[in-house]
Amino acid sequence: MSRDTETSNLTVEHTASTTNISSNTVTFALAQSHFLVGDITANADKMRKLAMQARDQGADVIVFPELALLGYPPQDLLLRPSLSGRIKSALSALSDIQDIVMIVGYPHVDHHGTFNSAAILHNGHQKGFYHKQFLPNYGVFDERRYFDKGRNQVLFDYKGITIGLLICEDLWEKTPIADLKQQGADLVITLNASPFEVGKQDARKDILTKRSREHKMPIVYVNAVGGQDDLVFDGGSIMVQADGSIAHEASRFLDQLMFATLNVDNYQFNTQAKTPLTLSRESEMYQALVVGLRDYVNYSGFTGVLVGLSGGIDSALTLCIAVDALGADKVYAVMMPYEFTSKISLEDAQAQARRLNVSYTVCPIFDAVEGIRHTLAPLFNKSPADTTEENIQARARGVILMALSNKFGHLVITTGNKSEMAVGYSTLYGDMAGGFDVLKDVYKSQVYSLASYRNRLEDTPVIPERVITRPPSAELRPDQKDQDSLPDYDVLDSILTLYIDEDMGYQGIIDKGFDADMVARVIKMVDNSEHKRRQAPIGTKVSQRAFGRERRYPLVNKWSVNG
Amino acid sequence: MSRDTETSNLTVEHTASTTNISSNTVTFALAQSHFLVGDITANADKMRKLAMQARDQGADVIVFPELALLGYPPQDLLLRPSLSGRIKSALSALSDIQDIVMIVGYPHVDHHGTFNSAAILHNGHQKGFYHKQFLPNYGVFDERRYFDKGRNQVLFDYKGITIGLLICEDLWEKTPIADLKQQGADLVITLNASPFEVGKQDARKDILTKRSREHKMPIVYVNAVGGQDDLVFDGGSIMVQADGSIAHEASRFLDQLMFATLNVDNYQFNTQAKTPLTLSRESEMYQALVVGLRDYVNYSGFTGVLVGLSGGIDSALTLCIAVDALGADKVYAVMMPYEFTSKISLEDAQAQARRLNVSYTVCPIFDAVEGIRHTLAPLFNKSPADTTEENIQARARGVILMALSNKFGHLVITTGNKSEMAVGYSTLYGDMAGGFDVLKDVYKSQVYSLASYRNRLEDTPVIPERVITRPPSAELRPDQKDQDSLPDYDVLDSILTLYIDEDMGYQGIIDKGFDADMVARVIKMVDNSEHKRRQAPIGTKVSQRAFGRERRYPLVNKWSVNG
Repeated sequence: MSRDTETSNLTVEHTASTTNISSNTVTFALAQSHFLVGDITANADKMRKLAMQARDQGADVIVFPELALLGYPPQDLLLRPSLSGRIKSALSALSDIQDIVMIVGYPHVDHHGTFNSAAILHNGHQKGFYHKQFLPNYGVFDERRYFDKGRNQVLFDYKGITIGLLICEDLWEKTPIADLKQQGADLVITLNASPFEVGKQDARKDILTKRSREHKMPIVYVNAVGGQDDLVFDGGSIMVQADGSIAHEASRFLDQLMFATLNVDNYQFNTQAKTPLTLSRESEMYQALVVGLRDYVNYSGFTGVLVGLSGGIDSALTLCIAVDALGADKVYAVMMPYEFTSKISLEDAQAQARRLNVSYTVCPIFDAVEGIRHTLAPLFNKSPADTTEENIQARARGVILMALSNKFGHLVITTGNKSEMAVGYSTLYGDMAGGFDVLKDVYKSQVYSLASYRNRLEDTPVIPERVITRPPSAELRPDQKDQDSLPDYDVLDSILTLYIDEDMGYQGIIDKGFDADMVARVIKMVDNSEHKRRQAPIGTKVSQRAFGRERRYPLVNKWSVNG
Repeated sequence: MSRDTETSNLTVEHTASTTNISSNTVTFALAQSHFLVGDITANADKMRKLAMQARDQGADVIVFPELALLGYPPQDLLLRPSLSGRIKSALSALSDIQDIVMIVGYPHVDHHGTFNSAAILHNGHQKGFYHKQFLPNYGVFDERRYFDKGRNQVLFDYKGITIGLLICEDLWEKTPIADLKQQGADLVITLNASPFEVGKQDARKDILTKRSREHKMPIVYVNAVGGQDDLVFDGGSIMVQADGSIAHEASRFLDQLMFATLNVDNYQFNTQAKTPLTLSRESEMYQALVVGLRDYVNYSGFTGVLVGLSGGIDSALTLCIAVDALGADKVYAVMMPYEFTSKISLEDAQAQARRLNVSYTVCPIFDAVEGIRHTLAPLFNKSPADTTEENIQARARGVILMALSNKFGHLVITTGNKSEMAVGYSTLYGDMAGGFDVLKDVYKSQVYSLASYRNRLEDTPVIPERVITRPPSAELRPDQKDQDSLPDYDVLDSILTLYIDEDMGYQGIIDKGFDADMVARVIKMVDNSEHKRRQAPIGTKVSQRAFGRERRYPLVNKWSVNG
């Protein structure tokens, strides 16, 4: 039931369903659900359950996210020799589901190559396969490492309409949807695994509105949901009317099976005009951080997390996020005072822990630090104190946290923010010791906004006001303040945002009105801290340019700030 | 002086030099030299000096390695907004060199895109630009993240011959050289930045011989040299006769300006039939490790390295490599005994350090470990000892080494081998604490071979024989042996090589005759240690599949061993 038509170098496959019962509506189910990377069997089981549930609730077609059968991004699992066999078995088993068309994202391996694909399964048959045409290979994406470029258009006829398929990046380009329209598509389905960043959902809606208006076609946009290492997929799947208006929008960050019925006579989705939810910037960022931590911890099999509290705002916010992600009974806080820890810090740490009802222990590190200093004394030979002694305190805390983690099985989460990670204001194996850095992609000024946001959600603030208002300090020497070593955070974060998130250079940043020496100083701090970031724990990406796989700089390099 | 010919979708540029003096010979200089990533100004200066030297020694044409003007691999420096301006100034300044044709590897940015290119510079003119056609995006390579695909052939006529240009991967493909031949090329020049792995030079010679025979053309193959983060470029530039025989081969791992003269009447390189050096597997691996460490340390600006000796073979070999790389006066060894450290270990560590004439200190860690244990005692509440206590010892050593590094400015180098990194037989922030892991890509069985190889180079062994013959132990508990927790290293390394280097799966490895339970156990250990490797220091790639950028696995994943 398929025919191939050569159009320039594109092959168009046109598949018609055998069950071509005349009807005035087609009901779509969008399976915005979490599919775990690598877990093909469990993912297939989940697809089966969702398909049967959707069918029982009247759906004609169910659509899963991009590569859902394997999870996204699978990285080098795509190179495993048993991949093709595992995928074929799973797809084949799924094909037996009756009376609903399933559109399944999966990696397709055949003698032509490996493709990022969508299969059309119906009543025991694999009706067609679409291969993604535009493979992103920038930012966090490495799709050309694995996939060959698809060159086929795929359309299928079902219950009187002709449906075209696209995958993610294809829709951001102009031509693929235009080609489908030209081949007679009435509606386009697009499968996505689009990672969260602040403002991304608005960008998605803009492109969906634009594309549907360009071609006067309704679009069914299904996104993945859930955390995977440093990425969070934020759902927000969308049904777009042919006039570009949003008919339905699924919840952000939540598993949801969303239904919408297309009236075949006018190609309009029936809608009860649900107003799509719009989340504030703080709200969506906070939720992404919660989901990212939650899924990393749960899918790694940890029974809880351990966080070192300092009395400061970073660890206070991290604690809130951990409690919101995992529940207070899975969060263990420990305060590790030393001689420079202030009374306020001890009080505030305790207040935070009490307010959030988490296990709280105070573990003074005098003995550990003194033991280390004794060991070093003969080698240090009375040399004057410098940052070495500060790092020893931070590393003693790292050793204590890791020992507690090893003994009791909880994951150490770290509290370094993006400003600190950027300029290297952190100690490797000290405060950087742990498996997941919750605020890694959140600038210090955003830490303050998120803390205030979180406090506004409840009548009694969960973060004591004093934590927000006192000047930040690492408390590694007497009367230390962050601003002894760093520019004011508002200036610092502005320069960092331009340099890192917006990829601007020295001259461009100066042209924005910043002092040249300050810009040079900040850029040098960033460039000289690459070795720390290379050994840093991962953390959830929330910005348009996160540290980690999205920003790949050489360690040894002599690129000059203004050369 | 250039003309463009459309041939299908390829544009052929044919450039003739203005200085077209008739002559019977053309002399090529191959600038196998280290060009530091990012240091455009210094790289251009070096090119200028080499070009003038080559010209003064009679060269007509000098060829630099792939992307030499920026260094390779520049990674996200290719995204810096000032890149294009910096490159244009440098190229323009270089163009004024008279009386020698320069073939310069550089990143070309214009309104068509960004290309991995070679410029032909001669007497104040930029005669032509070749853009690499085949962009590797596998293994350690991410070229499609940055570069657009070149679609032009470039040939230029000089002193009676027609020379075609290729860049690296282009020659590994069949078509680019065939296209040049068809367009009338008499000889092909290829610019390379081909990273070392054991056996790679043989593979290069095989492909060069094959390509030159296919087209009866001589080939000039210039490779980069020197270390860049985890990669080492091993030189070994080659002149190939039209019959596929090797006319000249440059030294491996060394900067060298190599000359060869082509007789234009018969397209033969004049050669004094120098037999190319062939290095043993151990020799080339050892040299790569030396160069990798040397260049990382020197170009990072460290004045020396600090290594923790254990008395075992890994730290013994690491010490040798460090001394060979940097000289004994830049290597600082410290032995950090605790209660499980044997007398033999103390003796052997001292013997190694004495034999190699490095600074040696013994720093017992009792106080540090006891201090940490005191701090933890109230929290541990007399729970029985487990691996936590072993990790505390390893981490106390990490803290001591890092404190010495902070105080005296030396880079801590680590000694973990590839077998340990593979199965996670290591402590994060403990023995893994440091900036560079010298043996990261060397399996334990190869550590033994390299130690024996190094001992054979001198009359008196630099590694005491007992270090090689005693059973390996981490000495973190009484009478501990590696083989209490791990399979025998010969079996382990064989399975690891199949699984990691050759990317085979569970079934394939069993089919090679290994026990199924053992294979499953080893694969699980590897898969479950990804989180440790993600925070590990870099180390020199010497195998065909090194940990790091060459092997990208998700942290959270439920891929089953045999699912």
